[in-house]
Amino acid sequence: MPRYALKVEYDGAPFAGWQAQADQPSVQAAIEAALDRIAPGPHRIAAAGRTDAGVHALAQVAQCDMADAWEPFRLSEALNYHLKPQPVAILAAAAVDDDWHARFSAVERRYLYRIALRRAPLTVTAGQAWQIKHALDADAMHEAAQTLVGHHDFTTFRSVMCQSASPVKTLDHAAATRVETDFGPEIHLTFRARSFLHNQVRSFVGTLERVGAGKWRAADVRAALDAADRARCGPVAPPQGLYLTGVGYPEDPFSAG
Amino acid sequence: MPRYALKVEYDGAPFAGWQAQADQPSVQAAIEAALDRIAPGPHRIAAAGRTDAGVHALAQVAQCDMADAWEPFRLSEALNYHLKPQPVAILAAAAVDDDWHARFSAVERRYLYRIALRRAPLTVTAGQAWQIKHALDADAMHEAAQTLVGHHDFTTFRSVMCQSASPVKTLDHAAATRVETDFGPEIHLTFRARSFLHNQVRSFVGTLERVGAGKWRAADVRAALDAADRARCGPVAPPQGLYLTGVGYPEDPFSAG
Repeated sequence: MPRYALKVEYDGAPFAGWQAQADQPSVQAAIEAALDRIAPGPHRIAAAGRTDAGVHALAQVAQCDMADAWEPFRLSEALNYHLKPQPVAILAAAAVDDDWHARFSAVERRYLYRIALRRAPLTVTAGQAWQIKHALDADAMHEAAQTLVGHHDFTTFRSVMCQSASPVKTLDHAAATRVETDFGPEIHLTFRARSFLHNQVRSFVGTLERVGAGKWRAADVRAALDAADRARCGPVAPPQGLYLTGVGYPEDPFSAG
Repeated sequence: MPRYALKVEYDGAPFAGWQAQADQPSVQAAIEAALDRIAPGPHRIAAAGRTDAGVHALAQVAQCDMADAWEPFRLSEALNYHLKPQPVAILAAAAVDDDWHARFSAVERRYLYRIALRRAPLTVTAGQAWQIKHALDADAMHEAAQTLVGHHDFTTFRSVMCQSASPVKTLDHAAATRVETDFGPEIHLTFRARSFLHNQVRSFVGTLERVGAGKWRAADVRAALDAADRARCGPVAPPQGLYLTGVGYPEDPFSAG
């Protein structure tokens, strides 16, 4: 069966996460239902990152198998037609080999976390960032984030629900920058790794927020990491600030588009 | 009675516009209801720009009169508490003189219009921009926008419902720029004038979009302006891309904050 890669953007707010669950709306089920409308199913799709409830994606990557060959652009247009009015959009589609897999072929995941620094409630950007009412020192957060980069046992920053075989991962990049937006100042945190543990980014951000607030020092983050003890993690940041921004493959399946 | 200036941000989507109307939700009525909750009313407020249904504001300016003196920060916090969960936020409050008026003291209004350039439906940014699926030439739009700058009879770009005494206004600034965002390329159009006619910015943008699409030339915009004929206007752009971004006064009432 011809296999296609799908680049997917979504607003996570109305969904219980990427993964299909009984009686709960999910991004996966929304796309599978759209596939069932355009071709005989049932379809089952897989994605590079199984985002949690409320987490957004700018460029999630999924795969689907179709009984017949589709012109990729027509496939994306047909899916977008049937996905409406749900906030899920197929940004691109591409034909891939049978042995290509959205999850297992991926060699990199990238995340963005947005913190909105303001007193007043968010309006236009409600649900798109974690609102923090006190001051945060982005430089201190950036410095502390560097202690997380590298090959470590990340038990401290891993949900107890995590199903990964090992807590040892390599974090390739972590950064925190203050950004001025139309809606006031924000801190944007970015992370890049081959793969992440469950809740790893939100655990990083909640801990780094404590550093930005002056409650923790970079050395405290290092000590928490070294302890490899979940109880040493800072608070877990809420989902609405988190965006899966991209997935890397040895060859970009969408480069032809 | 002590008078206060309020800097207000809102998502225009759920409102029939700024102005209070019978049986329709409005931003004005939402703020007046919040005022009535914190002090004896009824309160009536006025704003610098009476935005239409669906139009957003990043920094609308309104005024309110209170029976008693309020510490401005406490006033904004109390209003924000009672405005929840509506997408209206008081960004700042400031005490002003009795003869200061949010609308009549204003000497400048600034607007932003966002056009999202993409095929796929908007998800996270749904309702925050005008989505255009074809290519637009931002440079051509910028050049054509310059023909609108200056002192002109803007009858062509004025709603037939406009209640302004004269169609003659001075446009101080108009620009169009292509901007790369996390959600794909956008064209941001900005306009600045002492005051605007009803639907003037959306009439400008709908006409400039035709230039960006290659259907009109800058000379066609000039001819439409010179004709002073509403029938010569391009399509009126939809409200969800428009933001009132700021209001200017001889002295900034919020500068102390």
